Amino acid sequence: MEDRLVQLPFWKDLTERERETVQRSAVTRRYEKGALIHDGGSECLGLVLVLSGELRTYLLSDEGREVTLFRLYAGDLCVLSASCVISQITFDTQMTAQRDTEVLIIPANIVAMLKEQNLAVRCCLYELATARFSDVMWAMQQLLFKGLDRRLAGFLLSEAERTGSDTIRMTHEQIAQHISSAREAVARMLKQFSEEGLVELKRGAITLRDFDSLK
Amino acid sequence: MEDRLVQLPFWKDLTERERETVQRSAVTRRYEKGALIHDGGSECLGLVLVLSGELRTYLLSDEGREVTLFRLYAGDLCVLSASCVISQITFDTQMTAQRDTEVLIIPANIVAMLKEQNLAVRCCLYELATARFSDVMWAMQQLLFKGLDRRLAGFLLSEAERTGSDTIRMTHEQIAQHISSAREAVARMLKQFSEEGLVELKRGAITLRDFDSLK
Repeated sequence: MEDRLVQLPFWKDLTERERETVQRSAVTRRYEKGALIHDGGSECLGLVLVLSGELRTYLLSDEGREVTLFRLYAGDLCVLSASCVISQITFDTQMTAQRDTEVLIIPANIVAMLKEQNLAVRCCLYELATARFSDVMWAMQQLLFKGLDRRLAGFLLSEAERTGSDTIRMTHEQIAQHISSAREAVARMLKQFSEEGLVELKRGAITLRDFDSLK
Repeated sequence: MEDRLVQLPFWKDLTERERETVQRSAVTRRYEKGALIHDGGSECLGLVLVLSGELRTYLLSDEGREVTLFRLYAGDLCVLSASCVISQITFDTQMTAQRDTEVLIIPANIVAMLKEQNLAVRCCLYELATARFSDVMWAMQQLLFKGLDRRLAGFLLSEAERTGSDTIRMTHEQIAQHISSAREAVARMLKQFSEEGLVELKRGAITLRDFDSLK
């Protein structure tokens, strides 16, 4: 057990006595592929350390579509399954095992006790929550920008073909009008294309660099 | 200045020397209604304490629609405007003044220094980020469940009229099929209606309590 507990980022900050408490209370559990591990409405599981396998956290949309928020792999810690301990977390998420998965669980009441008496643990829990915040923002942006990457790539390729030039001289505003999007959205997606090496951006001009990937 | 700085939740945890540093570096700034205060792409402003007025943080959708993430009022602190200090925050947001607004700003480099040398400040920054996480999850759920409240209320009212009874005996699954939604989504929205006093839920029955609000 101890060789697993040392994976906890706050293990080094625990007192000897706190370590003993964690060792006594932590349990390992196996979930079969597809098993529901955590549901907003159900019990508050505690802090979950993934030992092997894969967990997926998602929201259910109105029509029952699952919107994946983030995935966790071996070595990752999940703090949302201990949301009852963290008063700032006021939302519910679902979590399932995507594959046969083994986890280490530190029960919620132990997490609550550590959070109260050890500032390093408290800090670590909130750092973990903040990291998940970024994951969720990424998922939200995917929702908001669904299909824009394809529409923009398609437009750039057709413009290159139409003009017979790899370099397209249009403003972001003009492109946005062509593909029914907004200037800011086009600017952001072009920046992303540029970071991926698909295009090169210069003042007033976009040069296509990787036709295969754009297609 | 000091009567404003005491509003900082970590003020009591600062050393005398740290307090002096904050006092020397903090600035107040006024923004007119509509002014852009923070843009993901631009400079990292620092920690923002709202003194008066209202700030709004949002994402831009593909079509240029603004999706409000949260609003901040007098006394609220914004940590996303200091995202450069917090490596776990990897996303960009926009922030504007919704009204004439006065803020106190602790510059990013000072926030970074405090975060490194004072665990209580570090912890507080992540707690703030986690609170904003919950705000954003709420906004995301609004996106995913857009219009479900109206569809569900409309269905309940028409059923009450059709059957001549204030009590509707249907399972969540059946209702979900009627309004093209999912059982989980209907269950969650009914729970929300119940908390708002619009309906009363009993085993297998939904009793309408507030017809005006449902309409």
